[in-house]
Amino acid sequence: MGIETSKPAVGIGLIGSGFMGKCHANAFRSVGGLFDLPVRPVAEILADMTDEVAQRSAAALGFKRSTSDWQKLVDDPAVDIVAITAPNVLHEPMALAAIAAGKTVYCEKPLSTTAASARKMTEAAEAAGVVTMVGFNFLRNPMIGLAREIITSGEIGEITGFRGRHAENYMSSPDVPHSFRTAIEGGGALADIGSHIISMARYLLGPIADTCADSHTIVRDRPVSAGSSHRAPVEVDDMTHALVRFDSGVAGSLEANWAASGRTMDLSFEITGTKGAVAFSQEFMNELRLYTGVGARAGFKRIEAGSQHPPYGQFCPAPGHHLGFNDLKVIEVAQLVDAHASGGTGFPDFREALVVQETVEAMQESARSGAWVTVPGVS
Amino acid sequence: MGIETSKPAVGIGLIGSGFMGKCHANAFRSVGGLFDLPVRPVAEILADMTDEVAQRSAAALGFKRSTSDWQKLVDDPAVDIVAITAPNVLHEPMALAAIAAGKTVYCEKPLSTTAASARKMTEAAEAAGVVTMVGFNFLRNPMIGLAREIITSGEIGEITGFRGRHAENYMSSPDVPHSFRTAIEGGGALADIGSHIISMARYLLGPIADTCADSHTIVRDRPVSAGSSHRAPVEVDDMTHALVRFDSGVAGSLEANWAASGRTMDLSFEITGTKGAVAFSQEFMNELRLYTGVGARAGFKRIEAGSQHPPYGQFCPAPGHHLGFNDLKVIEVAQLVDAHASGGTGFPDFREALVVQETVEAMQESARSGAWVTVPGVS
Amino acid sequence: MGIETSKPAVGIGLIGSGFMGKCHANAFRSVGGLFDLPVRPVAEILADMTDEVAQRSAAALGFKRSTSDWQKLVDDPAVDIVAITAPNVLHEPMALAAIAAGKTVYCEKPLSTTAASARKMTEAAEAAGVVTMVGFNFLRNPMIGLAREIITSGEIGEITGFRGRHAENYMSSPDVPHSFRTAIEGGGALADIGSHIISMARYLLGPIADTCADSHTIVRDRPVSAGSSHRAPVEVDDMTHALVRFDSGVAGSLEANWAASGRTMDLSFEITGTKGAVAFSQEFMNELRLYTGVGARAGFKRIEAGSQHPPYGQFCPAPGHHLGFNDLKVIEVAQLVDAHASGGTGFPDFREALVVQETVEAMQESARSGAWVTVPGVS
Amino acid sequence: MGIETSKPAVGIGLIGSGFMGKCHANAFRSVGGLFDLPVRPVAEILADMTDEVAQRSAAALGFKRSTSDWQKLVDDPAVDIVAITAPNVLHEPMALAAIAAGKTVYCEKPLSTTAASARKMTEAAEAAGVVTMVGFNFLRNPMIGLAREIITSGEIGEITGFRGRHAENYMSSPDVPHSFRTAIEGGGALADIGSHIISMARYLLGPIADTCADSHTIVRDRPVSAGSSHRAPVEVDDMTHALVRFDSGVAGSLEANWAASGRTMDLSFEITGTKGAVAFSQEFMNELRLYTGVGARAGFKRIEAGSQHPPYGQFCPAPGHHLGFNDLKVIEVAQLVDAHASGGTGFPDFREALVVQETVEAMQESARSGAWVTVPGVS
Repeated sequence: MGIETSKPAVGIGLIGSGFMGKCHANAFRSVGGLFDLPVRPVAEILADMTDEVAQRSAAALGFKRSTSDWQKLVDDPAVDIVAITAPNVLHEPMALAAIAAGKTVYCEKPLSTTAASARKMTEAAEAAGVVTMVGFNFLRNPMIGLAREIITSGEIGEITGFRGRHAENYMSSPDVPHSFRTAIEGGGALADIGSHIISMARYLLGPIADTCADSHTIVRDRPVSAGSSHRAPVEVDDMTHALVRFDSGVAGSLEANWAASGRTMDLSFEITGTKGAVAFSQEFMNELRLYTGVGARAGFKRIEAGSQHPPYGQFCPAPGHHLGFNDLKVIEVAQLVDAHASGGTGFPDFREALVVQETVEAMQESARSGAWVTVPGVS
Repeated sequence: MGIETSKPAVGIGLIGSGFMGKCHANAFRSVGGLFDLPVRPVAEILADMTDEVAQRSAAALGFKRSTSDWQKLVDDPAVDIVAITAPNVLHEPMALAAIAAGKTVYCEKPLSTTAASARKMTEAAEAAGVVTMVGFNFLRNPMIGLAREIITSGEIGEITGFRGRHAENYMSSPDVPHSFRTAIEGGGALADIGSHIISMARYLLGPIADTCADSHTIVRDRPVSAGSSHRAPVEVDDMTHALVRFDSGVAGSLEANWAASGRTMDLSFEITGTKGAVAFSQEFMNELRLYTGVGARAGFKRIEAGSQHPPYGQFCPAPGHHLGFNDLKVIEVAQLVDAHASGGTGFPDFREALVVQETVEAMQESARSGAWVTVPGVS
Repeated sequence: MGIETSKPAVGIGLIGSGFMGKCHANAFRSVGGLFDLPVRPVAEILADMTDEVAQRSAAALGFKRSTSDWQKLVDDPAVDIVAITAPNVLHEPMALAAIAAGKTVYCEKPLSTTAASARKMTEAAEAAGVVTMVGFNFLRNPMIGLAREIITSGEIGEITGFRGRHAENYMSSPDVPHSFRTAIEGGGALADIGSHIISMARYLLGPIADTCADSHTIVRDRPVSAGSSHRAPVEVDDMTHALVRFDSGVAGSLEANWAASGRTMDLSFEITGTKGAVAFSQEFMNELRLYTGVGARAGFKRIEAGSQHPPYGQFCPAPGHHLGFNDLKVIEVAQLVDAHASGGTGFPDFREALVVQETVEAMQESARSGAWVTVPGVS
Repeated sequence: MGIETSKPAVGIGLIGSGFMGKCHANAFRSVGGLFDLPVRPVAEILADMTDEVAQRSAAALGFKRSTSDWQKLVDDPAVDIVAITAPNVLHEPMALAAIAAGKTVYCEKPLSTTAASARKMTEAAEAAGVVTMVGFNFLRNPMIGLAREIITSGEIGEITGFRGRHAENYMSSPDVPHSFRTAIEGGGALADIGSHIISMARYLLGPIADTCADSHTIVRDRPVSAGSSHRAPVEVDDMTHALVRFDSGVAGSLEANWAASGRTMDLSFEITGTKGAVAFSQEFMNELRLYTGVGARAGFKRIEAGSQHPPYGQFCPAPGHHLGFNDLKVIEVAQLVDAHASGGTGFPDFREALVVQETVEAMQESARSGAWVTVPGVS
């Protein structure tokens, strides 16, 4: 008996098939079997730099068609959602084209290389009324949802302090060459991974209003390309420490560091309230530490992810089995597809990603001037 | 441009669409985008108890067809691999039918409810020369592969001791009703999860030759069904502690406990050698602790999973991003498909699963008799 | 102005000034400043093997007098408490002499090298009605007191399981020579450190009634003395795993291992109840992990020692400052001096140490016979 | 035989017998039995506020004499070392008197309530040529010594980043009343405990040259005294976050927070170098985490304190037995007595404590002005 699928199809057009493209493709493939969505994502077209790469990736990733012309993908009537995993400098033209075509736009972070560009994209999307979403996938972790619930419910009292960090070591070695990551516009540790801890801080505690930052370049020059003996100076930060004051009055600090020897994924925070605290590190992504008690039984509790922390249960009914990084992308895609189907607002949308970028740029400005800087647009 | 996929298709027939069925389906969907396989898995037919369930699951999980008659699935010429996630008591007839049809058989653990049944299945499969694999998916963890490499390479010297455990708390509550898990044949903590730590111990240290075990029933009676006020006695173990001696001369102990309050997934071990030690717990599935040094810098090292630990890199190029439980199933399916395509031997195959079952039964016999028992078939 | 100390003096006679002797001396010196005792310990006489050693140690450790004749120390009218830190084989004659002299006897563990000898000492002490105490100092940890309170109060429900261990690596190296530790009588890992986890298990859960053990010698021969090239076979255990059943019905396992590469002080347990669990390791001696909750906030809590856990506050008013190993000895000495002053019963007294020794010997017998053994004297 | 102690006596005069006084007294009593010192500390006189308190404390803590007049103690010819544990405002007059009397001065931290006062004390001590030492006892931890050795030896390459913190929760509750801790001069979290992480940062990485800080008062008013219903505003910081740049070029951040719910003693740091990293928290004071490797075996190593990390072995020959907080004071006193006996320089001396205080005040100034501030006297 053949299957008659009653759910309406939603056509996916994916631009890019590198690490993130593969991750998107896999999420679109898996999401229907894990979440009960109102529609059925169909992998329509995959675009990449050349016909050959696009074709091979499309075959491997299960897309019906392929192209080396992303504009065709955007315009294709079977494509409802345009997923952009191309280099950052291309996000703007691709997103603007997709917006012009009335498509839902799902863009990898950062939204663009500058806040000015991100603003242009945001305003175009809002004018057109299309659904947008940006890939800050670490926010999708059920443990982050739990942290937010604990914070907003008042379980740990009034929030008083924040200490955040995103530290990795992928740029530690002086042998890592220049790339888009070290481009003056849009490059640097703060823009690349600092944006993750900023988006997480905002998700948990609201807008960062003011900041004072200090940036340093640790690896002063890098090969111009992999294996090259020709080295060129690095003009972006490897490490930034920043003081932050939130709109709510909460104060604290954060660090972005991509030359942090020994750290692979220390996207972490400790948030302190008058009655308790929560602490998290992506190095232990399936647990949240919570302190609430007083007296002889008080202590930080290690809460392990389980089906009591939605949407963990979509992946596994039993606690302690652990979600992985790719699962966070599946959750993100489920929310994207839901937003698309309902015509609602995705989160984080272009507007949110714009403010993250403005926060990054305020920190960069502070690092240059040595003075406190107010993030624009935050009251 | 339409995609012409040059890789030959391999038809998948999946029996069962519960937790494990979903997990299998998702793995077959994802595997092609993550691993470079010689063939292309195609989700052909899904079988479940009723037409309705089967049809709905097939639609959700992306299968072309559905059926409520598993025999039809087994016989279908488009089906090359039969994946069995049905209740344990059905494993034997399903597997025997699939073997008779010359299909590759992929069976969830336990292979069957008794060693006698498992032996029948194993002998049939070996006589027919079909590829078999059993779903001891925790073995697929790159960190377990690393542990094995460390042990077999002699990095920690000659192995001297083993301490293992699989402890969870899903049967802690006296409100959890009777089910196949509490059936006299094939039920109990030792059979259900003790088999995981036994299979892992064998994978890392070779055969367990002798054992002396002590089993206890903690929840003495349970509701006959969910919510029922009628309770019936429990006749299987909730907790078993066992002394073990390996064929190699290594000695140690292990525990199986499904009423271990506070534990969600403590599938763990510490293996000690003359020059070091390795320690692991599935609660921290993306890390392995290794001790090798001496002197003022000695200490247990926390090694985080990364692309230097294959096949982690198939999922993510960057370390610290974490695999999840479902990813382990994808790795298993990749190895299954490879074994099928090459006509080679899967691991763990029916033979291995049979010996795990025999080890379980030796422990059960010891728990009854109070004496040491030799595992049959182990020299 | 000279100080008139109104508290009555209690004279201390210390036999031995090695590691443990030093530890005793320091505890007797410090205890008065940390605890409000009814009496004032005065360091009267120190005895050691030669006059020279005794004199030098007495000077360093603040004793008034010294001797190489322990019998004189025992008989000295100024000595009220005899503290024995001499080699294990001398515990019996020294204790019997002190008992005969009507002194309070404070003896390092093990009480003696055999249960027969320990029984003789115990019966003599009980007949004479003297106060006795044996140095199982790990029991003095405020966190162990907290664990006991949690267990006995029913906070974690009815106890269902025990998993204990004392693992260190001080005998790992084949270069460690023979010594009293490897003597056939009283030697081996089980007697040396297994006695600690046995005494702790008894303190927390009551008597061990039955046991089945498996002992192994890892380092088969050792130098007859330090640096010697002449090696002699080792006839005691380096590692013992044991199944245990408590008088209360609780079951579990324990391990003693002094060749556990990578472990310095893993005196640890996990005790599971129907409503929760407690876990501890001496490697983290200032914390106890407690699981009690259910639902979305459940998790193991890390309770740090503080003044809410007596007698921590005697050492420091602030939590998190940590007690050390030597502080445990001070607590023990405070309890000894209290028991002496009140004429009450010390704990653990000779009787308790005797039963620990009998439990050790039951395990040794089981390891020889391969059968379950009942610990004598336990109902 | 009576003991003739050949070592010369050094007379100790202790001012104050609160928590810290008790801690000093105990350290002076114990140090001779644990360290092989050139001289023998003798507890001569204890001074406290009233004759009664002084007399009782002297008796309890083993001092020969007592007084309520600290000037007499300072002038007493039998007193060689003056230990000051009185309220911070009294440190200056007491120390100046002791310096004038030519005594070695051992002062609890902070050296004084202001840098101006501390400078006066420092200059007087240097002019008089007396030995001084200030009680930053956390520096005495063998693990901190190990960290310093690792850093200075180049084992983790060139240092690139610092992240430090001292967070506790003893002022979290709004019921904690005003005290010297909340005095405008010398009060606040930064002065009270921030000074610890500053002294540690300096010990490990050298002078902090520039800083930009942000201070916040979390508990806005407190009872004027314990239990009072009359509340007065708090004018000092509960929490300060600061950016720091070291003289060496290393950059980073630190936090002082005494209202950090859930934290009892998070005096912690992570120091990153081009080839590795070290991390420490006083919550785990007997371990240092070290990252140095690359490749498939890289990971943070948990190094446990042992006799290979001097002077751990003075307390216990075996690793893993743990030092406690009070032991750190004993180490400090051993170094004090050594410096006194040799006439050498103590560390940290008054000069070092002065610069710590100047660093605190630079941060306070920055918090007021919102601008970066250069620490005076640092090149």
